[in-house]
Amino acid sequence: MSFARAYKCMACGHEKEYRNNETVYVCEKCGQNLEIIYDYAEAAKAINRKSLADNTDMSLWRYSALYPLENGTMRTPLQAGWTPLYKAERLGRKFGHEKVWIKDEGRNPSGSFKDRAGSIALSAAIERKAKRIAGASTGNAGSSMACLCASVGISPVIFVPCKAPKAKIAQLLLYGAKVIAVNGTYDQAFDLCHDACEKYGWFNRNTGYNPLTREGKKSCSMEICEQMGWEVPDWVIVPVGDGNIISGIWKGFLDLYRTGLTDRLPKLCAVQSEKSNAVKKSIEASSISDIKIVNIEASTIADSISVDLPRDGIGAVKAVIESKGVCIEVSDEKILEAIRTAAETTGVFTEPAGATSIAGFEKLAASGILKENETAVCLATGNGLKDIDSALKAAGSPILIEPSVENLQGII
Amino acid sequence: MSFARAYKCMACGHEKEYRNNETVYVCEKCGQNLEIIYDYAEAAKAINRKSLADNTDMSLWRYSALYPLENGTMRTPLQAGWTPLYKAERLGRKFGHEKVWIKDEGRNPSGSFKDRAGSIALSAAIERKAKRIAGASTGNAGSSMACLCASVGISPVIFVPCKAPKAKIAQLLLYGAKVIAVNGTYDQAFDLCHDACEKYGWFNRNTGYNPLTREGKKSCSMEICEQMGWEVPDWVIVPVGDGNIISGIWKGFLDLYRTGLTDRLPKLCAVQSEKSNAVKKSIEASSISDIKIVNIEASTIADSISVDLPRDGIGAVKAVIESKGVCIEVSDEKILEAIRTAAETTGVFTEPAGATSIAGFEKLAASGILKENETAVCLATGNGLKDIDSALKAAGSPILIEPSVENLQGII
Repeated sequence: MSFARAYKCMACGHEKEYRNNETVYVCEKCGQNLEIIYDYAEAAKAINRKSLADNTDMSLWRYSALYPLENGTMRTPLQAGWTPLYKAERLGRKFGHEKVWIKDEGRNPSGSFKDRAGSIALSAAIERKAKRIAGASTGNAGSSMACLCASVGISPVIFVPCKAPKAKIAQLLLYGAKVIAVNGTYDQAFDLCHDACEKYGWFNRNTGYNPLTREGKKSCSMEICEQMGWEVPDWVIVPVGDGNIISGIWKGFLDLYRTGLTDRLPKLCAVQSEKSNAVKKSIEASSISDIKIVNIEASTIADSISVDLPRDGIGAVKAVIESKGVCIEVSDEKILEAIRTAAETTGVFTEPAGATSIAGFEKLAASGILKENETAVCLATGNGLKDIDSALKAAGSPILIEPSVENLQGII
Repeated sequence: MSFARAYKCMACGHEKEYRNNETVYVCEKCGQNLEIIYDYAEAAKAINRKSLADNTDMSLWRYSALYPLENGTMRTPLQAGWTPLYKAERLGRKFGHEKVWIKDEGRNPSGSFKDRAGSIALSAAIERKAKRIAGASTGNAGSSMACLCASVGISPVIFVPCKAPKAKIAQLLLYGAKVIAVNGTYDQAFDLCHDACEKYGWFNRNTGYNPLTREGKKSCSMEICEQMGWEVPDWVIVPVGDGNIISGIWKGFLDLYRTGLTDRLPKLCAVQSEKSNAVKKSIEASSISDIKIVNIEASTIADSISVDLPRDGIGAVKAVIESKGVCIEVSDEKILEAIRTAAETTGVFTEPAGATSIAGFEKLAASGILKENETAVCLATGNGLKDIDSALKAAGSPILIEPSVENLQGII
């Protein structure tokens, strides 16, 4: 049994009863995104600090009492989650704030945070006997789904815009996915995926449409609290594109609080590229009772958070406002610089989207919003090896010498 | 205190007493490579199956009783080792042998097996108060050292041939290493590193020269046995270039056996590219009492195991002969094919060197040398994201369509 109780609309609040083996995507009343609500009092009997201390499963499955899955459902075998959380003192000193940690999500099976979403979505699809699994993606979500599906012998259908980077398409194909290159934009690939799932009865994993992705992503918040000895950090700094990661992070802290595992909530700092700031603009146009999602034309170097229309925009805006957080913008130059800063001060090499949280930390510390005694956690959402071209721009040059030890004089 | 007792020459057998805080590289009598020998009876009091079952440190540091380091020595903070070991049934079925596992070393901090060597070498360098740490590398060993050093605020000196791939040099620079590009070959960079360490009194981490790298690499064997519930596999299939990984793998199984943690030893299958087969040629030219190391001109696509002169050749030849194993060659075409096979049957995406063990498994299974009831573990030594260009060659092409659901008819 699962402790999930209802689907609740993020926009109108309408609730629909949760039933096992039923796949529900959007609100039956208003068509907006849903979140999954649990019977938290019952869940608290199955998961608590003591049960977690005794749990030897070092993966996101240690929080299975708070997932919308039956006991006994097949768990994807690739070890996702329980990524390292490092105290980052040298990074902190650089920006005058030592109480900072970095969560290295590049250590997940396919190298990104998206494996959290994919693990829960795929297990649910298997539980619900999905005929086929499909999704639209140009990047990390697609390679994550293809990777996880390969581990259970499933070939998903993945829709990509035909102009997606060849390297990203290569990964999908290597994992054995059926890759459909759509002669059009990402939005057209997203819509085609939706139409195909409707027509053929497939399971649609699309981010910001399927409520299960958020349920997987929330596991990161649970790990942060547990890895910090159940001290909830004051701030969590999150790179934001389509809004689903920050929405999942917030859901994680809320679910911990509702289950009694924690007694407070953090503030969330959403960080966007200046060149992909739809969520920032949406927050500026919204109040908590009247959320407006703004569509822009994005062009940032941080491709994983380059988003025109944030598909989980309501969730992202709510996360920032409800947590009494902030949304800040950083330049692409600062993002590139942050790749280097993170690598050389912590040993964590992250892709541009991941480094966005480091650039955001610098700005948050400088602004005075982050108080001296407050703790902050930066999410490094993807592995730096995913985007070597951007890394090259931040790297600089080596010193060239002839092969004789005398030539080292004065340069080392 | 450490249980290390002596340095023993791999060639002449001469022993030199092990002393804390002393750095010893090669045999004082014959100049050949050394291995570190422990007081295994004493070590067995500190490490056993029960103590390991109670140990919650899920990294290579769980085996610290069998490292040449004092208690209390700084442990590198990046979480290296305890990589996932997956049963690979679909991979096995493809080649008619289901009892096969894959060890995903791409999950280490810098994305390769080398982080095991680097963790122990770096901690030893810190313990021994090294003025500076240096190494020569074109690839994984260098980026691993730079990554681990960054995590403790050290800038190592890394010598690279000036023609090393830009992306690899970029990673070194990002981690804050002092990168010296040598106008010459890898061998010249290796020798220059040696000369510089002699002249300036630096700590030389070079693979196949510093005996500590093998001590780190052995941790993988310990994990394999523990993760298999202390069943020693019948075969371990290892990609081989300079010989240091297979030499470390063998040392791990030997040290477990000597400490009483296991009661048998596996056979090792060394796998080389046909285009980089110096160890195979050395084995053919050697007997256990008369080991001859052969120098070739290597050119394989699997750059991490492309080696002219195997610097830990004696260790590699011994590992294969002593374990009653075999050394086999595979073609570069088979290596590329194996990248795809591993990815689509297990979800593990590995670089060409890592896939070499999968190609070797296919050949070993087909040969009949691997018996039906025998178990085999393949080492996937590095993350596939490290070499996207090779992956592209193995990937194939997507299906291109116009963005309308009708166009899916007949193609999905």
